[in-house]
Amino acid sequence: MSLISVGTMAFDAIETPFGKVDQIVGGSATYVAYAASNFVKPVQQISIVGNDFPAEEMEEMKKRGVQLEGVEIVPDKKSFFWSGRYHEDMNSRDTLITDLNVLADFNPKVPDSYQGTEFLMLGNLAPAIQISVISQMKKRPKLIVMDTMNFWMEIAMPDLKEVLKQVDMLMVNDAEARQLTGQFSLVKAAKAIMAMGPKYLIIKKGEHGALLFHQENVFFAPALPLEEVFDPTGAGDTFAGGFIGHLAKTGDISFENMKRGIIVGSAMASFCVEKFGATRLKEISQQDINVRIAQFKELVSFEIELV
Amino acid sequence: MSLISVGTMAFDAIETPFGKVDQIVGGSATYVAYAASNFVKPVQQISIVGNDFPAEEMEEMKKRGVQLEGVEIVPDKKSFFWSGRYHEDMNSRDTLITDLNVLADFNPKVPDSYQGTEFLMLGNLAPAIQISVISQMKKRPKLIVMDTMNFWMEIAMPDLKEVLKQVDMLMVNDAEARQLTGQFSLVKAAKAIMAMGPKYLIIKKGEHGALLFHQENVFFAPALPLEEVFDPTGAGDTFAGGFIGHLAKTGDISFENMKRGIIVGSAMASFCVEKFGATRLKEISQQDINVRIAQFKELVSFEIELV
Repeated sequence: MSLISVGTMAFDAIETPFGKVDQIVGGSATYVAYAASNFVKPVQQISIVGNDFPAEEMEEMKKRGVQLEGVEIVPDKKSFFWSGRYHEDMNSRDTLITDLNVLADFNPKVPDSYQGTEFLMLGNLAPAIQISVISQMKKRPKLIVMDTMNFWMEIAMPDLKEVLKQVDMLMVNDAEARQLTGQFSLVKAAKAIMAMGPKYLIIKKGEHGALLFHQENVFFAPALPLEEVFDPTGAGDTFAGGFIGHLAKTGDISFENMKRGIIVGSAMASFCVEKFGATRLKEISQQDINVRIAQFKELVSFEIELV
Repeated sequence: MSLISVGTMAFDAIETPFGKVDQIVGGSATYVAYAASNFVKPVQQISIVGNDFPAEEMEEMKKRGVQLEGVEIVPDKKSFFWSGRYHEDMNSRDTLITDLNVLADFNPKVPDSYQGTEFLMLGNLAPAIQISVISQMKKRPKLIVMDTMNFWMEIAMPDLKEVLKQVDMLMVNDAEARQLTGQFSLVKAAKAIMAMGPKYLIIKKGEHGALLFHQENVFFAPALPLEEVFDPTGAGDTFAGGFIGHLAKTGDISFENMKRGIIVGSAMASFCVEKFGATRLKEISQQDINVRIAQFKELVSFEIELV
């Protein structure tokens, strides 16, 4: 099985209570690639970068089975740049700078060599771009997962509603689920979102874990209680990459297997936050991942007799 | 096995986004009794009320196996009264009124008939009162669990530190764990609290579930995702009652059994929030509890092979 990942490849400047970096490689598709390539090859990347994006980063990705034919390199422009500052609780952050640069012209083309791919991860981008990618797929993928954010709800709601009709799963955080539906209760928000199109919904709650909804079914996975969340940047995209990477590896889109995917995604995200950017994701081994998944099992497993 | 529950029996006035009540029976020991009596009898209550506390409520408790010999009735005073208002997120509330009334004179006496009891739940009270109860026990209980709150950290920290040395388990919410230790990370806070005395720690996170810590072990139980949290008042005490009720029923204080206790407590708390006060707790059957516990199992259970 293979996986197409559409999203940004970018530079970030990040400040957390534990330190700061002025320039580190980031972007949603970067995190998805580093997470998913542990489980599925190839990861077929669709993105856009400027002349400043490091060749070594591209090489590192290729070594991990990431195909870059769908990554446009614009020779006379800079890569997308985001700068943000986290507060102590790490669940809130201030965006300091957003320089779109190449992203302003992003008009992705799905390479012929990517056609026939069965898993499609649409990172947080303008809904019109997400629709364009779906419409370029000659055979509809087995599973289309999309991310989005509050910005698109504010400026492109009609497009967003259209893409929601075309995907199988929406993956958003709790604040986004509430904003999209006007429902404070996440259970009510979930019902409202599934009525908009997606048959599956994942609501990410950061340090409080993630919920998977499908029809009347609900599954909850905690985040691992960590001594320190060093840098949460990319944790949501890493979660997405681990989730869809596991599904693409197994080719199984049952609810039971999606539960496993969420545990895998949570495990990958728990590594991501340990160091700045994707640093930790590049260090870990298959064995590290296995140990972490076993910790998740330990964290929630109990045997109980009914009273 | 039997259980002593020390705490308030009181009146509350509650306002939530869904409605308000001007006077409803509440108090920590009330919730503990209604939750724990589903699992263990007798529940031996230690509290103080005024001349206004309803005789019917006392009768209802007795029917459920709650002993009231340790409940002092002060003929010329009113019961403790608390009034509060919840906001939309239900995790924050404003206290509007606190009338101590009889609570100002609370100097609990452990009745002789309660001696030898193996489980002791010390509800949120002045640490000096908690110490007094422990010191009156002729045989140390098998398990002593205590609750506390920010107020005692501010005005009675030396007493609080003393009682922490004498108990087996502290049960607090996330904000209280942070305030008690000055650590933002709950994992670091947990280590700091266990260094103060308690071998076990439960950190309650409201709608985000609860964590159990013991040495290097950690267990997480989610809260049930509910369409509506109607009134969270008493949910933490109900959780405590279900937890210690299950332990007292089984007489088993292993970490594995504490996990089960947390699931039972979470199930009881999920009922509590469905109606004002303890209303819902008085309606539910053993069968309702079983169904709810099965839902918790379903919510977190997954099977996973390592990669």
